Amino acid sequence: MPKRIAAFGEVMMRLQVPGYDLLSQGNTLKYSFSGTGVNVVSALARYGHQGKLITRLPENALGDAAEAYLRKLWIDTSLVQRHGKYMGLYFLENGFGARPSRVTYTNRLESSFNTAPQDVYDYEALAAEIDALHFCGIALAMNNGVRQHIKALAKAVKQRGGTVIFDCNYRPSLWGDNGYVKAKPHYEEILELSDIVMMNEQDALYTLGMDTTKERREDQLEELLPQVAERYQISVIAGTHRSIHSSNEHSLRGFLLRGGQFTYSDMLTFSVYDRIGAGDAYASGIIHGTLEGFAAEKTVRFAAAAAMLAHTVSGDTPMASEPEVLRAMTASAGDVER
Amino acid sequence: MPKRIAAFGEVMMRLQVPGYDLLSQGNTLKYSFSGTGVNVVSALARYGHQGKLITRLPENALGDAAEAYLRKLWIDTSLVQRHGKYMGLYFLENGFGARPSRVTYTNRLESSFNTAPQDVYDYEALAAEIDALHFCGIALAMNNGVRQHIKALAKAVKQRGGTVIFDCNYRPSLWGDNGYVKAKPHYEEILELSDIVMMNEQDALYTLGMDTTKERREDQLEELLPQVAERYQISVIAGTHRSIHSSNEHSLRGFLLRGGQFTYSDMLTFSVYDRIGAGDAYASGIIHGTLEGFAAEKTVRFAAAAAMLAHTVSGDTPMASEPEVLRAMTASAGDVER
Amino acid sequence: MPKRIAAFGEVMMRLQVPGYDLLSQGNTLKYSFSGTGVNVVSALARYGHQGKLITRLPENALGDAAEAYLRKLWIDTSLVQRHGKYMGLYFLENGFGARPSRVTYTNRLESSFNTAPQDVYDYEALAAEIDALHFCGIALAMNNGVRQHIKALAKAVKQRGGTVIFDCNYRPSLWGDNGYVKAKPHYEEILELSDIVMMNEQDALYTLGMDTTKERREDQLEELLPQVAERYQISVIAGTHRSIHSSNEHSLRGFLLRGGQFTYSDMLTFSVYDRIGAGDAYASGIIHGTLEGFAAEKTVRFAAAAAMLAHTVSGDTPMASEPEVLRAMTASAGDVER
Amino acid sequence: MPKRIAAFGEVMMRLQVPGYDLLSQGNTLKYSFSGTGVNVVSALARYGHQGKLITRLPENALGDAAEAYLRKLWIDTSLVQRHGKYMGLYFLENGFGARPSRVTYTNRLESSFNTAPQDVYDYEALAAEIDALHFCGIALAMNNGVRQHIKALAKAVKQRGGTVIFDCNYRPSLWGDNGYVKAKPHYEEILELSDIVMMNEQDALYTLGMDTTKERREDQLEELLPQVAERYQISVIAGTHRSIHSSNEHSLRGFLLRGGQFTYSDMLTFSVYDRIGAGDAYASGIIHGTLEGFAAEKTVRFAAAAAMLAHTVSGDTPMASEPEVLRAMTASAGDVER
Amino acid sequence: MPKRIAAFGEVMMRLQVPGYDLLSQGNTLKYSFSGTGVNVVSALARYGHQGKLITRLPENALGDAAEAYLRKLWIDTSLVQRHGKYMGLYFLENGFGARPSRVTYTNRLESSFNTAPQDVYDYEALAAEIDALHFCGIALAMNNGVRQHIKALAKAVKQRGGTVIFDCNYRPSLWGDNGYVKAKPHYEEILELSDIVMMNEQDALYTLGMDTTKERREDQLEELLPQVAERYQISVIAGTHRSIHSSNEHSLRGFLLRGGQFTYSDMLTFSVYDRIGAGDAYASGIIHGTLEGFAAEKTVRFAAAAAMLAHTVSGDTPMASEPEVLRAMTASAGDVER
Amino acid sequence: MPKRIAAFGEVMMRLQVPGYDLLSQGNTLKYSFSGTGVNVVSALARYGHQGKLITRLPENALGDAAEAYLRKLWIDTSLVQRHGKYMGLYFLENGFGARPSRVTYTNRLESSFNTAPQDVYDYEALAAEIDALHFCGIALAMNNGVRQHIKALAKAVKQRGGTVIFDCNYRPSLWGDNGYVKAKPHYEEILELSDIVMMNEQDALYTLGMDTTKERREDQLEELLPQVAERYQISVIAGTHRSIHSSNEHSLRGFLLRGGQFTYSDMLTFSVYDRIGAGDAYASGIIHGTLEGFAAEKTVRFAAAAAMLAHTVSGDTPMASEPEVLRAMTASAGDVER
Repeated sequence: MPKRIAAFGEVMMRLQVPGYDLLSQGNTLKYSFSGTGVNVVSALARYGHQGKLITRLPENALGDAAEAYLRKLWIDTSLVQRHGKYMGLYFLENGFGARPSRVTYTNRLESSFNTAPQDVYDYEALAAEIDALHFCGIALAMNNGVRQHIKALAKAVKQRGGTVIFDCNYRPSLWGDNGYVKAKPHYEEILELSDIVMMNEQDALYTLGMDTTKERREDQLEELLPQVAERYQISVIAGTHRSIHSSNEHSLRGFLLRGGQFTYSDMLTFSVYDRIGAGDAYASGIIHGTLEGFAAEKTVRFAAAAAMLAHTVSGDTPMASEPEVLRAMTASAGDVER
Repeated sequence: MPKRIAAFGEVMMRLQVPGYDLLSQGNTLKYSFSGTGVNVVSALARYGHQGKLITRLPENALGDAAEAYLRKLWIDTSLVQRHGKYMGLYFLENGFGARPSRVTYTNRLESSFNTAPQDVYDYEALAAEIDALHFCGIALAMNNGVRQHIKALAKAVKQRGGTVIFDCNYRPSLWGDNGYVKAKPHYEEILELSDIVMMNEQDALYTLGMDTTKERREDQLEELLPQVAERYQISVIAGTHRSIHSSNEHSLRGFLLRGGQFTYSDMLTFSVYDRIGAGDAYASGIIHGTLEGFAAEKTVRFAAAAAMLAHTVSGDTPMASEPEVLRAMTASAGDVER
Repeated sequence: MPKRIAAFGEVMMRLQVPGYDLLSQGNTLKYSFSGTGVNVVSALARYGHQGKLITRLPENALGDAAEAYLRKLWIDTSLVQRHGKYMGLYFLENGFGARPSRVTYTNRLESSFNTAPQDVYDYEALAAEIDALHFCGIALAMNNGVRQHIKALAKAVKQRGGTVIFDCNYRPSLWGDNGYVKAKPHYEEILELSDIVMMNEQDALYTLGMDTTKERREDQLEELLPQVAERYQISVIAGTHRSIHSSNEHSLRGFLLRGGQFTYSDMLTFSVYDRIGAGDAYASGIIHGTLEGFAAEKTVRFAAAAAMLAHTVSGDTPMASEPEVLRAMTASAGDVER
Repeated sequence: MPKRIAAFGEVMMRLQVPGYDLLSQGNTLKYSFSGTGVNVVSALARYGHQGKLITRLPENALGDAAEAYLRKLWIDTSLVQRHGKYMGLYFLENGFGARPSRVTYTNRLESSFNTAPQDVYDYEALAAEIDALHFCGIALAMNNGVRQHIKALAKAVKQRGGTVIFDCNYRPSLWGDNGYVKAKPHYEEILELSDIVMMNEQDALYTLGMDTTKERREDQLEELLPQVAERYQISVIAGTHRSIHSSNEHSLRGFLLRGGQFTYSDMLTFSVYDRIGAGDAYASGIIHGTLEGFAAEKTVRFAAAAAMLAHTVSGDTPMASEPEVLRAMTASAGDVER
Repeated sequence: MPKRIAAFGEVMMRLQVPGYDLLSQGNTLKYSFSGTGVNVVSALARYGHQGKLITRLPENALGDAAEAYLRKLWIDTSLVQRHGKYMGLYFLENGFGARPSRVTYTNRLESSFNTAPQDVYDYEALAAEIDALHFCGIALAMNNGVRQHIKALAKAVKQRGGTVIFDCNYRPSLWGDNGYVKAKPHYEEILELSDIVMMNEQDALYTLGMDTTKERREDQLEELLPQVAERYQISVIAGTHRSIHSSNEHSLRGFLLRGGQFTYSDMLTFSVYDRIGAGDAYASGIIHGTLEGFAAEKTVRFAAAAAMLAHTVSGDTPMASEPEVLRAMTASAGDVER
Repeated sequence: MPKRIAAFGEVMMRLQVPGYDLLSQGNTLKYSFSGTGVNVVSALARYGHQGKLITRLPENALGDAAEAYLRKLWIDTSLVQRHGKYMGLYFLENGFGARPSRVTYTNRLESSFNTAPQDVYDYEALAAEIDALHFCGIALAMNNGVRQHIKALAKAVKQRGGTVIFDCNYRPSLWGDNGYVKAKPHYEEILELSDIVMMNEQDALYTLGMDTTKERREDQLEELLPQVAERYQISVIAGTHRSIHSSNEHSLRGFLLRGGQFTYSDMLTFSVYDRIGAGDAYASGIIHGTLEGFAAEKTVRFAAAAAMLAHTVSGDTPMASEPEVLRAMTASAGDVER
């Protein structure tokens, strides 16, 4: 049964140098609008849910373009506020083989979203309109204002019986020096409120400061995450392990911890066209499987296939429909479809 | 010695989303004009023959653009008729790795070609201008009018001692439900008239409804095709076996049945840039080798190398000259030519 | 107060050769999706109303792209049906100065919209969701099936007290030989149901077969349209007179007949960038002014300014907001806004 | 009745900076292939004649691209020779308003055409294949080898009763210092052989060194050209007077001297999109009218309209069909054609 | 004799939607780097001077691209500092005819330039490397830090006998409420230091708060500017009057006040391709004429022609060489240069 | 410590068909300016040296564009002369997989560089401005004039104690028949003057006509190059061995002979995006390492990593900074950098 799912998060403008040129070589940029929340609710809308975004966009041509773009991504923009003048931007130079991709941010702290004053969101009213709320560690890293909004909104949703979904997504550059120490209390407060959490063993070790004597990441995962699930009463924890090969190929394996049991997808190996946002595709698959009551194995395989497909389309935002993901779960590389 | 070879078939407009975007992501299309007959006679013209097209194009800007494009492909358009208003179009979204390419057709049944009335082609006059006639199973699938034209033209060519070339090319979506049953009598009638036929074991099994107890496709091939050659008195039967790997690589092996003997090319493995039309490059190689009297082995290796090269250029239509194909038969991947 | 306005009409794919190339010169096309109904409800959505579309789009990649595009244009697609395989397309070659623009259509009669069977629209349910219904003479020209849907839907809306809006938009090429004779009874039946009508003296003379001894178009207008308004009980009739100058400039004057009174806008003269769809911008202005209760003069000046601005943006669909139109009503050509 | 018309001349590659950028601003070029002869016979082919080109193109990828392009322009390339390595190129930076367009040539003297040795053209055989021969003062300016080919070919055509067409087209930069003195004997020799000549009063004054006491260019024209026609026994002399306005508008009036009578077109004023090659469109109109036996007035009006239309399309080569030129002779600027 | 001229000012990234699309219609941007100082010293470098820039650019891919771009514009970047993470950006949507161009800024106050701490510029060392210093009212509007740098640098240059050039360039949106009151003391302090000033009567009236009873702008100009020159001991004051017509045409007249005398250029009327930065081209012409000792009339006519040409090239930065400006001073619109 | 390094060599315009189209398929070209000397000194400038170019560029729009482009590449153009009309061009069609890239040159012998008269370079003055001089076998192949300049300049540099760097770079097509015989005396004369030489065993065998009984290229290398070093008193000889795999992958191993010792890099295997100019990146790495006094192993690994990275960026010219090369020496393929 389709659900009403809202993401609370920032919309960024992505400005990508076409092909494999550097910024200092080219003279054109391809632009689009994205963000973790954008990617997740757009994917969920393609799977048949109602995907909403709770955010603030500037009241100018940039905001107009962003809102139109969100609608094109099937996102319901009725909860989007329009105020202020700025939005965050990032420049992307595609890497090739041995040369990694490079992202350059502009100052996002002045954006309409990150400067939203205390009283602009009516948490109760918003909570009444949604069945599930998604947000991530990127928004949590911004400033106290944003953190306050996140916590208040999550509490309101929780109280009304809604589902709270948190993607740990720790970005060192955003938290600065002593970042883990600064981040830990906020992560803990959020985990207390969360039902579905995207994380892996590194979040447990570094952000939550947990310990292990295991060395293999799989062993660390199996030791630490059940402790997290129990401590914070989280029903679903999921994530991926990725390895990067030469020749523009990646391998990815998804895991799902539910009811104390780990389930894994196959290790998928595939050519990569556009890596950004693939983690959000995985998250969307986990959320969809959980909300729709898929079995654990179908859930994790669906999420991994969704992530794989997201590497093959341009832009941050997943574009596959549910039937396309289901086909990718079974099929080998295919010939032209006509 | 160069021959006059005409293809009877439809010209389609190909509308391709550039790069790897989906139709719902992009806003530009790259267009060209192609079709099995276009591809085959253009390739033969590059090999030194006179390549003609017998078709109908609309009498408007689309038809003008198509005819100019055919001329650019070295096709002699003196037998092209201009009448009516419509032509078939197809949209192509390039796949990437795990995501297959996708083709979306517009309604081609209303095209100038597919609605040509009974008396518009002077079969005898056309047969007098050509040494060989090529057509394929796609045209045969269209409607009774087109089928009637094909059969009458093939008979006229046959009677004047010309060569009749048929590419089985069975497309399930065009024949609809019970397609094999509908198609079989037409295929049989055509095979009776044909000298050179492109087909493989699947055409024998499904379209002609033949039987085998063999399981490997190579064994099926070697059992069934000699029966076909004998039954319909076909001097040359040729085709390919293809397998698709991850990482945008395909493998392809050509075969040729002539005088009761099978000859095979090496299994070629190569990176794929644009897969559509590569089968037509193979057919052109077989036709060229046969018309020029190449030995069987040279013929099948030439055809396979032509097919391989056709995967490396954009567009449906092969672009390689005879020297380029000959070089590709021997050379390994090479450095810049300068 | 914002209204819920739905257009019933076909969505077309527009394929435009960039710049001023001909189809036979270029190799890329810019695509978008439009239609009279699309243009009108998108403009009304920008003015603050709820703009819906009642139509059918194919269930494939083309339909996906079209629906995403409609959403980007701020159109509510909740009443859009997805079925069938085809949609109408048109190719646009931009003219320059002495060389007129040229439009080439593909066969639109096979489109999902034009082949919608009898029982697919629930007229009562649709009428319940809208305050006003818009459709035009292009849809009326298609076939009996479409005409039947139009009439049934208009009646349902009328019966529920909604507003029926009709744009006469007679296209000779669509009605064929004896077109006026064929069209007249349908136009009359529709005019009986209509509250707001877009037309000018030529529709009265040719489509409705009326007579006048006047020679100047303004005099014909003032004689004939009041008769039309009275005969069919139409509360608002509006339209434009356009003249085309060399140097890519047009002049346009809007008129409005309401309560028996004619009101005219100034004659506006302006440079033209993209002429297609500008008539729909005028219609949207009239509808907005009428629904919002603007005075006659403000209504016709708003509509004329909206039409003028629509000539300055690319694509068929108007892009101006209400404040932008209001500014264009007063301002002279301005310097950069920064 | 369609004629076989060949142009003897060089094919140049045109490399145009898109839009209005300078070479030092942009990073892409749009390329095409043209030349006076190319433009003239392509236009004549669109009017229904057989347009051939007698030239030499390099035997490499550039030559392949050029020959394919010529075929797309409807030119019969059966008389084109492929030899050598180089072809002439020119770079075009579009001007805008007060900033003139700028052309930069590469060294064309080393081109396959300009280095053709003495015995490569079989003048008699070529003359046997054509009804009329066209060449121009640009080729005449190249070197003695090219001049020798021109003269021998013109004589062969003349002797077989064919029509010799010469466009004076004096380019000061190509003849260098004392250019008029160097050029005069060659021009005189050619004029002796010519039947149709494109020139105006400036050619008579400067290249032929004639005198006049008149001051207005029209008076000079009417005094000098009849003398030229008589002295060299030329049946048709034609040309244009052009004036350039601000705002990208030009005015142009064509004249035709035939049987001792001058006929003029109206002065046409129009917006200019791509000025290069418009003179060749005028020449093609004069040639077509003469070969088809149009009345003098129709001929000059047809030629002027063809020239006007050639200013409205991109590229050097005229793209209009005969019906399009005929329509432009009568019509005022029109609305979209659909 | 060429001079060493440095501009102190911010470099902005310009992100322009190609053609005439809106940000909400397109998906690509053309980028370049500019700024008043960039435009002025680049133009002066083209006139043969050494054009330097004193600024700060971020130490990342954006800064690399900006610095490379400045070098391409012939600017000497040896005084450019690289530090920090951000730079100002602006989005440009081209207007067309009745629809004005629109500029949307991102937050520039966080840029490397605008956050430069107190001790980063060695004013004495910089002053030793230059003959003249240019800056403008935009930089003055930023914050106290930037103002402090400007004043200290101007004083250092003044003390060493260098020339101080100030372009008033008052931007209301940057100074905010009560802007004139805030700005006045800073403008006065700067004018005390300045030798060459770009301003007109509006700066005198609004920024300096002067009075006049005259109504025509020309009369106001002639009354007020001599008072300014005298009060602040300014040797050269110059500026333009501009009027904007429909059809993308502007008119512009330059003035120059020197030694108590006003000199005017002709009123130039021309088509506009890219209006931004044309004022800087005028300033560069005045500076060049003054530094080179041109007569007053030649100076103002040179500057006006430079401004006119700057409207005809894309980008903010003038591209004309001195010979091109000199030619534009005399020539009427010309034909292709080849 | 940064050095002043000048390359003496020709600047070529590179005209590349975008993507993988052939010249006869496309209609646009991407242009840039390069050359062995350009590539080497641009790379050295990115490593912190002063990279100058000694060359001649035409005095027209092409020369303007080239010089601006060189400056964008961080090259100091103060020694560039502007004279003449022509420059060399080459067209590049990218290969794909089994289809090799193809380069087509225009006639470069007429370029400003290759026609520089005897007295245009002041060898002593130039030598005084530089610490090291680079040139290569391509320039040496041009004509006697260029060879004379090279030798005189190298002698002048040598006499002042500067470093002479020679890249053997033998191109068979430039030397023509009996090329090795013609080239040998010039190569020998140059090697006598050289301190750092780029070559491998094939140069020793063919150009210098040396002998070996060894068969493996590594053995030939180790036998022949020490002899070359000793005979001509060369302190550093370096080069690479490359092998080309299918799937657009190459392998490359660098070697360095210094003080009689060979040092090798690891064999690097990587995906190739743009192969042209990668050899120049290797040379730049060797030069940088030598001038900066890197240990042999660091030098050869730095050079090999620089070469590898140069295969991953578009254009002939390396774009990596020293930190980026250092990172590529250690890192495996990485994830997005953000």
